Amino acid sequence: MPTVTFLPGYRKVTVPGGTTILDAARAAGLSMNVVCGGQGKCGKCLVFIKEGTATFDRDKYRRFFSDDEIARGACLACQATVVGDVLVNVPAESLIQEQKILVEVPGQEGIPFNPAVRKYVVRLEPPSLDDTTPDLTRVLEGIEKQGGPPPTSIYAPLDVLCFLPLVLRRNEWNATATVALAPVGYRLSSVDGGDTSERLYGAAVDLGTTTVVAYLWSLTDGRILATASNYNRQISCGEDILSRVNFSRKSGLSQLQQLATESINEALTTAADTAGIDREEIFEVMVAGNTVMTHLFLGIDPAYMITEPYIPVVRRMLSTGAGQIGIAAHRNAEVYTFPAVSNFIGGDIIADILATGMTDREEATLMVDIGTNFEAVLGNSDWMLSCAGAAGPALEGGEVLFGMRANPGAIERVAIDAETLTPTCSTINGVRPRGICGSGLIDLLAELLRTCVIDRTGRINLDISHPRVRKGQYYPEYVVAWKKETSVGKDIVMTENDIRNLIMSKAAIHGACMTLLDAAGLEPGDIGRVCFAGAFGNYLNKENAITVGLIPEMPLDRVENIGNGAITGANIALINRKRRKELDAIARRITYIELNAEPSFMDRYTSSCFLPHTDFTLFPHVQQMLEACRAKQGVRSWQA
Amino acid sequence: MPTVTFLPGYRKVTVPGGTTILDAARAAGLSMNVVCGGQGKCGKCLVFIKEGTATFDRDKYRRFFSDDEIARGACLACQATVVGDVLVNVPAESLIQEQKILVEVPGQEGIPFNPAVRKYVVRLEPPSLDDTTPDLTRVLEGIEKQGGPPPTSIYAPLDVLCFLPLVLRRNEWNATATVALAPVGYRLSSVDGGDTSERLYGAAVDLGTTTVVAYLWSLTDGRILATASNYNRQISCGEDILSRVNFSRKSGLSQLQQLATESINEALTTAADTAGIDREEIFEVMVAGNTVMTHLFLGIDPAYMITEPYIPVVRRMLSTGAGQIGIAAHRNAEVYTFPAVSNFIGGDIIADILATGMTDREEATLMVDIGTNFEAVLGNSDWMLSCAGAAGPALEGGEVLFGMRANPGAIERVAIDAETLTPTCSTINGVRPRGICGSGLIDLLAELLRTCVIDRTGRINLDISHPRVRKGQYYPEYVVAWKKETSVGKDIVMTENDIRNLIMSKAAIHGACMTLLDAAGLEPGDIGRVCFAGAFGNYLNKENAITVGLIPEMPLDRVENIGNGAITGANIALINRKRRKELDAIARRITYIELNAEPSFMDRYTSSCFLPHTDFTLFPHVQQMLEACRAKQGVRSWQA
Repeated sequence: MPTVTFLPGYRKVTVPGGTTILDAARAAGLSMNVVCGGQGKCGKCLVFIKEGTATFDRDKYRRFFSDDEIARGACLACQATVVGDVLVNVPAESLIQEQKILVEVPGQEGIPFNPAVRKYVVRLEPPSLDDTTPDLTRVLEGIEKQGGPPPTSIYAPLDVLCFLPLVLRRNEWNATATVALAPVGYRLSSVDGGDTSERLYGAAVDLGTTTVVAYLWSLTDGRILATASNYNRQISCGEDILSRVNFSRKSGLSQLQQLATESINEALTTAADTAGIDREEIFEVMVAGNTVMTHLFLGIDPAYMITEPYIPVVRRMLSTGAGQIGIAAHRNAEVYTFPAVSNFIGGDIIADILATGMTDREEATLMVDIGTNFEAVLGNSDWMLSCAGAAGPALEGGEVLFGMRANPGAIERVAIDAETLTPTCSTINGVRPRGICGSGLIDLLAELLRTCVIDRTGRINLDISHPRVRKGQYYPEYVVAWKKETSVGKDIVMTENDIRNLIMSKAAIHGACMTLLDAAGLEPGDIGRVCFAGAFGNYLNKENAITVGLIPEMPLDRVENIGNGAITGANIALINRKRRKELDAIARRITYIELNAEPSFMDRYTSSCFLPHTDFTLFPHVQQMLEACRAKQGVRSWQA
Repeated sequence: MPTVTFLPGYRKVTVPGGTTILDAARAAGLSMNVVCGGQGKCGKCLVFIKEGTATFDRDKYRRFFSDDEIARGACLACQATVVGDVLVNVPAESLIQEQKILVEVPGQEGIPFNPAVRKYVVRLEPPSLDDTTPDLTRVLEGIEKQGGPPPTSIYAPLDVLCFLPLVLRRNEWNATATVALAPVGYRLSSVDGGDTSERLYGAAVDLGTTTVVAYLWSLTDGRILATASNYNRQISCGEDILSRVNFSRKSGLSQLQQLATESINEALTTAADTAGIDREEIFEVMVAGNTVMTHLFLGIDPAYMITEPYIPVVRRMLSTGAGQIGIAAHRNAEVYTFPAVSNFIGGDIIADILATGMTDREEATLMVDIGTNFEAVLGNSDWMLSCAGAAGPALEGGEVLFGMRANPGAIERVAIDAETLTPTCSTINGVRPRGICGSGLIDLLAELLRTCVIDRTGRINLDISHPRVRKGQYYPEYVVAWKKETSVGKDIVMTENDIRNLIMSKAAIHGACMTLLDAAGLEPGDIGRVCFAGAFGNYLNKENAITVGLIPEMPLDRVENIGNGAITGANIALINRKRRKELDAIARRITYIELNAEPSFMDRYTSSCFLPHTDFTLFPHVQQMLEACRAKQGVRSWQA
C-alpha cells in the first residue's frame, strides 16, 4: 500500500491506493480545513505534492490556485487521490488552527507541538557543468523546496561546511538537513547522509539543587521516549545553594560547572540508553534551574549573588553550543537556559509559571513553589508580581525533630481520630515510618488543631490525659508512632517546638501571599487558582493547607498541585518554540517584591503566626469547622 | 581647557571655555546641519549632552524639542557653549549627510567611515539594594545611554559573561564595551576595565596565492596605522592554486589551513608591532581571497572545485570567531571572508568590484584583473556579467624566455627608438636587468610593432639589418639588453615564440572582454571606464595595452589602474558596514559566463590573435598611428 508522508514534521501513514489525501491526512492525525465538507467547493484544503504522484484534475479546480501554486504542485486534498508513495506539503493555512498537533506534556495537556528544530530530507540533483550551484546553496535550496525557510535566512556554521562536500557525495546527494530556529533566523545544525528524518530528539532538563530530571523527546512526533533522574553531583561540594556558592568562591567554580554538566550528561545518557537512541541526535536541550544553578552550570561566577547587594551576572535566556559546554548531545545542539527575574526568582520559577499556564489567563493565579525557600508568583496575562523568602527548612523536614525529605519511610499523610486521638499514617512506599515529610507535617498540624490537641498558638494541651499527649524531654509532644511501629527504634513524636517552627514557616508563606495580594490590590477571593509547585506541593492535602493557614482560604477546587513545574515548563519550552520565545518577555514583565524591604510583610507574617491566622474573619470556613470541632469535643476555647 | 568628546566615535577636541558645541564639532571634523548658519533658528543642529555641562537656554529654544529629547539633554549645538569637559551625542540626522566622516582608503578616496564595531565607555552606578540590576543588564543599559543599540538587540557570548563580574568590580564599574554588528543584531564582543575607547582596531587582509597583505586600521578615527605583507606560507606546498588543491587532496587540508592562518597572523603581528598596538585589540578582520584560498583558509575541502563539474562548497560571505580559527586578534573578533560568484570569480574579485565603485555607477565599467588567470567583470549599478580564463603565464613572465615577476631587476618599461631601434628600459629598483615583467612585455610588443620590427601577426622581420634583430638559436629574436648591461651574464632577448605566447594571452583577454560586451549588447564605445586590477595593471602603459589590443580601443582617460583591488575592497568593507552588507547581494547579482561554453568566445579569441586585431576597424586610432609609423619608416605593409 502507498505511504503518504506529510510535511512539515514527516508524519507518515500507509493507505490503500485511491484514498484521498484528505483521508490520509486524517489518518495521520492532521485536521485540515474543509469548509465545504470535502466537496471541492471551498478550496481551503490546499496541499502541495512534492514527490510521487496523485490523481487530481487540476484544470477543473484551476480557479483555486495561482500560477505559482500550480508550479509547486498544488492540489485540493479532498479531490486528489493517492496512486503510489507521495510526499505532501501541508501549508499551515490548510490546517484548522495555526497549530494543530497537540502534545500531552506531563503536568499540562494539549501543548501545540511546534519544536524549534526540524529535519528536511533533501534529494538533490548532482551538480553538472550546466548546474554548478555550490554544495551549500544546493542543500539550502533543497530545504526550501521541502517547505523550509529561505536560504538567506539560514546560517551555516563552519564545521557543517567542512563535512558537507563528503556527506553529499558519499550519499549520492541524498541527505537530511537539521535546521534549528536561532535567536534570529535559522541555523543549519547538521547535514547527514541519507534519510534520518525520523531521528530527531530533544531534551528538557530540570537542573535542581538536589536532583536532575531529564525528559527525552522525539521532536518528529512529540512523543516522550524516556525520562531519567539522578542526584546533582554538586552535592559533593555542599548540600545547599549557599555552600555551593561558597565552594565556588574558593576556586571551585570550574569544578561545580563540570559536576553540573556531568549530572545532566548522566541523565541524558540514561534516557538515551533507555530509549535506544544516539545522544548525538539530540539537537536541543532546554535547562530550567534556579539562578545560582544556572550560573554554575554555565561557569558564570555566582559569588555576588550571596553578598550584599545580591547581584546576578545575567538574567536573560542564554543559548550555548552543546559542544562548547560539554553537553552530551550533537555538537551543534543548542543548550538553552531559562531566564530569571532575580537571584531568588530563577529559571525554575519561570518554568513553573509556564507550567501553570497563568500567562494565558485573565483570572489571577497564585503559584507557590515550596522548598527550603519558597517562591510565590501572583498574576495573569497582563501583570505578574513575585516574591521569595526562607520557608525555613521546617517544611522540608529540617528543624523538626522527626522531619525528613519525602523519601521511603516518610509519613506523608496523617489523620487523627477525634475520639481516640489515634493517628492513621501512610508512609512513602508503605514501609515502617522513619520520620515525617512536609505533607505529613501539615496534616499533623491540621489534625492536632482539629482534635484540639493544640490551640491556635500551637501550644499542646497537656491537660489532655492521653498517652500520646505527654510532657516530653524538652517540650510537650504528641506521639505519632510508637517505637515498636517504627523502623528507627524510638517513638516518632511532634514537639511543641516543631509546631512553632512549622507555624513560622507557614506564616512566612501566607504573609508573602497576602503581601502580593496587597500589592495587586486584590482580596483572596479574587484569586482564580492557587497552584502548588515542587515536590512538597505534590502530596499536600489542600484542605489541611488551608486549615493551618498556609495559603488564604478559598474553595478547594481552586487549588491545584502542578508537581515538578520546572520540568513541565522545560518540556513546554522544548516542544513549543512560541512559548520559548516569550520567556524573556515573561521574565521581564514580573515585578519582584523584596519582602524584607516591604514593611507590611512583617505585620502580615506576625498576624499569620496563628492557626490559621489571628484574624479569623479571613478564614470563615476554617473558623466554622474548628468551632464545630470544639463544640463537639467540649475542650477549651479556640480563642487563645 | 575643556575637552569635548563627540559620540559616536569618541572624537575628542580641546577648546576654550565658551566655545559653542557647533564650533567644537567643526574642530573635531564633524560637519553639522546648520541651515540657518548657526543663529538658533532652524533647530537642525540638535545634540544631546550626555555628561558634563554646557550653557544653554532650553526655555528659549523649547519649541525645537520633544519632552523625551529634553529629558535626554537636548541642546542646539550652535547655541550651547562649553563650560567644562563635556560628552556630546550627535544624532546622525544632525550631520550633513547620513555618513559624514569620509576616510581615504588607498585606491579609493572618500569612503564614509562607518565601521561595524564600536566601543562604548560606560560609567555605571554600582548596584545597591535599591538597584539590583544584573551585571549584564547594567552594562547593556549603559551602552544604550551612550547612544548604542538597545539591550535586547545585543547578544552576549558566554565568555564575556564569565569575565564580566570581575571586570566591573575591579574597575569600580567603569568599563568599555565593544559592540559589533552581527549578521542580525549586535554582539557584545568584550567588556574591558576602564576607558579603552581609543584602542579599537580592525584589519583588512588580501589573502593572495603568493602574497598576504594586511592593513591595520584604527576603527575609532579611520586612520591606517600600519601595513604589512609577506609571502603566503602555503607556497611550500605548491606555487599555484592547482598544486595547493592537489596537496590538500593528499590529506594536506589542515596543513594548508594552518599555513594560511600563520601567514595572516604574521602580517597582523608585523602590522601590530609596527603600530605599537596589542593584537588582542583587533576586533574585526576582513579577508579577501580567491575561492580556493578562502576554502583552504577556513578548512573547507576545495577538492571538488578542480574536477568536473567544478563545484565550490560555499559561495556566501562567512564569519567565524577569530578564536575558533586561530587568527591573532581578540578571541571574539569576527573574521569575515568575502563571498564568491563561482570557483573562478572569488572574493578577491568581489573586492576588486568594491574598489572600482562600479556598483554605484550608471555607466558601464569593465574591470580586468590579470594574473596567471584573468577575470573580467562588466556592469553597473543594475547588472553585472563576469568571466574568467587562463591568461597563460605569459603576462606574469612564464612561457617567455626572459619573463619574470615584477621583482627587482625586472624591465618594467621599454621604449624603442624608431630610427636606431635602441631600447630605453627602466627596471624595478633601477638595478641591472634580470628579465622582463608583464608591463615591460606589453611595452616591448607595442614598441616592436610601432617600429615595424614585428608585423601584425607577431613575426619578426629578419630583413631588418640590425644587430638587435637576429635569427636566434631556436627563433628569431630581438635583443632587449646586451649581456654586459645585464646581471644575468647573457643577452636578454624577446623571441618570436615569446611574442606568439603573449599574443595568445592578450587575445584571450580581449576575446573575453568582447564576449562580455556581446552578452550585454554593448559596443566598446559604451564602456565608461576600464579598470585594471592586480599588480600587473599597476605598471601597465595604457596606450600600449590598447596598441597591442589587450583591451578594446577607447580614449585613454577612460582607462584606470586600481592597483591591488583586493586589499582596497577589503579596506572598504572593513570601515564601512553598509558596503560590507551589500557584498552577498552583489555576488548573487553577478552572472557568470563560462567562456568554454560560449561558442562566440573562440571566434572572438581567434580574431584577437593579431596585433591589435584582425579587424582594424575596431582599433581606428591604432590603425592610424601604425600606418603613420609605417609610412615614416617605409617598411613592408602592416596588412600582413
